[in-house]
Amino acid sequence: MTRAWNFSAGPAALPLEVLQQAGEELSDWHGIGAGIMEVSHRGKAFSGVIAEAEADLRELLSIPENYKVLFLQGGQTLQFAQVPMNLLAGRSADYLLTGAWSQKAYKEAARIGRARLVASTEENGKFLRLPDFGSLPFDKNAAYFHLCTNETIHGVEVHEDDETRLFDAISAAAPGLPLVADMSSHILSRPLDVRRYGLISAGAQKNIGPSGLTIVIVREDLLGRAAAGTPALLDYRNQADNDSMLNTPPAFAIYVAGLVFKWLKARGGLAAMAAINREKARRLYAAIDGSGGFYKNPVDVACRSNMNIPFTLPGVELEARFVKESEAAGFIGLKGHKSVGGIRASLYNAVLPEAVEALLRFMDEFRAAHG
Amino acid sequence: MTRAWNFSAGPAALPLEVLQQAGEELSDWHGIGAGIMEVSHRGKAFSGVIAEAEADLRELLSIPENYKVLFLQGGQTLQFAQVPMNLLAGRSADYLLTGAWSQKAYKEAARIGRARLVASTEENGKFLRLPDFGSLPFDKNAAYFHLCTNETIHGVEVHEDDETRLFDAISAAAPGLPLVADMSSHILSRPLDVRRYGLISAGAQKNIGPSGLTIVIVREDLLGRAAAGTPALLDYRNQADNDSMLNTPPAFAIYVAGLVFKWLKARGGLAAMAAINREKARRLYAAIDGSGGFYKNPVDVACRSNMNIPFTLPGVELEARFVKESEAAGFIGLKGHKSVGGIRASLYNAVLPEAVEALLRFMDEFRAAHG
Repeated sequence: MTRAWNFSAGPAALPLEVLQQAGEELSDWHGIGAGIMEVSHRGKAFSGVIAEAEADLRELLSIPENYKVLFLQGGQTLQFAQVPMNLLAGRSADYLLTGAWSQKAYKEAARIGRARLVASTEENGKFLRLPDFGSLPFDKNAAYFHLCTNETIHGVEVHEDDETRLFDAISAAAPGLPLVADMSSHILSRPLDVRRYGLISAGAQKNIGPSGLTIVIVREDLLGRAAAGTPALLDYRNQADNDSMLNTPPAFAIYVAGLVFKWLKARGGLAAMAAINREKARRLYAAIDGSGGFYKNPVDVACRSNMNIPFTLPGVELEARFVKESEAAGFIGLKGHKSVGGIRASLYNAVLPEAVEALLRFMDEFRAAHG
Repeated sequence: MTRAWNFSAGPAALPLEVLQQAGEELSDWHGIGAGIMEVSHRGKAFSGVIAEAEADLRELLSIPENYKVLFLQGGQTLQFAQVPMNLLAGRSADYLLTGAWSQKAYKEAARIGRARLVASTEENGKFLRLPDFGSLPFDKNAAYFHLCTNETIHGVEVHEDDETRLFDAISAAAPGLPLVADMSSHILSRPLDVRRYGLISAGAQKNIGPSGLTIVIVREDLLGRAAAGTPALLDYRNQADNDSMLNTPPAFAIYVAGLVFKWLKARGGLAAMAAINREKARRLYAAIDGSGGFYKNPVDVACRSNMNIPFTLPGVELEARFVKESEAAGFIGLKGHKSVGGIRASLYNAVLPEAVEALLRFMDEFRAAHG
């Protein structure tokens, strides 16, 4: 078996050790004579799996006791609807637009209820920076303030300093306004102060596990506000009261996510991962910035993402060639999102430093040949 | 590796050949250097997987061209909401109650819009029969007529003759009224005339594949009627227009379902499976009925399910002992649903005849020891 250098944006690379264990246990989990996806979700085996996954996630993210952890379906896209269905309670919500995903969230919220555009950083169709959080016109009476803390397509990330600035700005201008964040593409990439948020959600298929699983971390006081007519399954309160098993959960995806959580713990947890992730990203940005303009990343240096690094080459023909030759050289997933073109390398936890080094060598060779 | 005799109601047994292939391909699918759950859902590898799964399902069920096949998330429980959100269009819908699942569907539809109870077969808290379809008071102006064609908990199935009677009754009394069926627990157990239905849905975790995947087969003229405010992801029209990829689909579950479809085709398709399934069920019902009253199944013989066979023993203590001793003897999943108690054996496609024979031997021995 040969593993490619996988830089996919999601679904994305999973740790090889996790895949090997899942493969070995696929038709006989812990000697029970069946795979974990072949047994009742209410039985002892799976109940243990989901409880352990939750406990490990709570440990990794230091999730306080007054937060519920929900294992849901529908991806972050369904959260774009589920958040306003559950939290608006007849009010308006504030939306900050910093890229394609926060844009989608805003559009969906406006379909469900009242959503207000607080600010957008779009300039000529591009999203390259974060706003000055201190000067945002927060609505003190809003149901919540929504943002996407890592824009996968545009490569814009809210780093820890900016997160603190945002939190301080809200605390000053609109105390108590719940912060709601789509963290799909950088959750678990670094330590997180969950207490700053009312609700955090993330599709699993980037830094958590297989697609088909969405994790929601929600403060208990925000439960029980769902609008009348909300489908039973989409009411956070119902799912919280039923330990995410109002109906059959996506059992295999939860099991694999649990293995990923153990893999992260064995590697020293999120502080250790953050150091590795920062260094991986630093190496790649240095290669881009040091390429004499052959490779370019246009994002404001202060909010360049450590997870998703888009870059361009001189012309679309050369970019197409880069993709094609990279695939021939054993790389996967380097083509940029169709909406923005170019190249994109996603450096999630399971993308090891040696994969980045291999990419840097390939980029050097490609530039030498075509620069 | 020892495989148990797995009679779980869902998540349920999968074919061993499918699990073995999935295990072998988990970290390197067809030599691409990554597992199928690690690559973009829009790339060549997964696009091929989902297209092939759809083509095989269309072949197995002879799905006509004017029906869309959707691969969704949320389980049948979300369909209980999604069906009325998409099909009511301001009208009322007719619901037939023949067990716990149609009851849930009715309750959820009434939360979303107007639902009318056409008939219920409940007697003293039990569901043991089907109604006389010819005498049902169909609403000619209803948006659709909803039923569950196999009640997993109560073991009541609409067999082919009854299906024909229902179809003829609707054609006579309310021509054009779309028939909507929850077929979660018996889809793919026998051939099906899809043209009789407006919409068919099924959670995967019984007879299709892993949990976290729901299949919807919907006639094209029923698309595009979703109520305003329906979340984008829950609008069948959107999913149909985007080939079930409005967002990232549950890729691994779809891949495994595709392997199951190939497994079914290799075994001669649904006519062959139906013959095997009928014989498996006949053997078990014969053992129950021939046990001198030790084992009892109370369901009307005409609508006893071939997939889910609940039965009782003399007293709850003996039932608990049966469950415990069966587990010690290498059986899984024989405990009845908590809402009805007793024992339940689910005989999905992947439960082979030899598993049923093993169960019959165990039942004989248990009766000899405790009868």
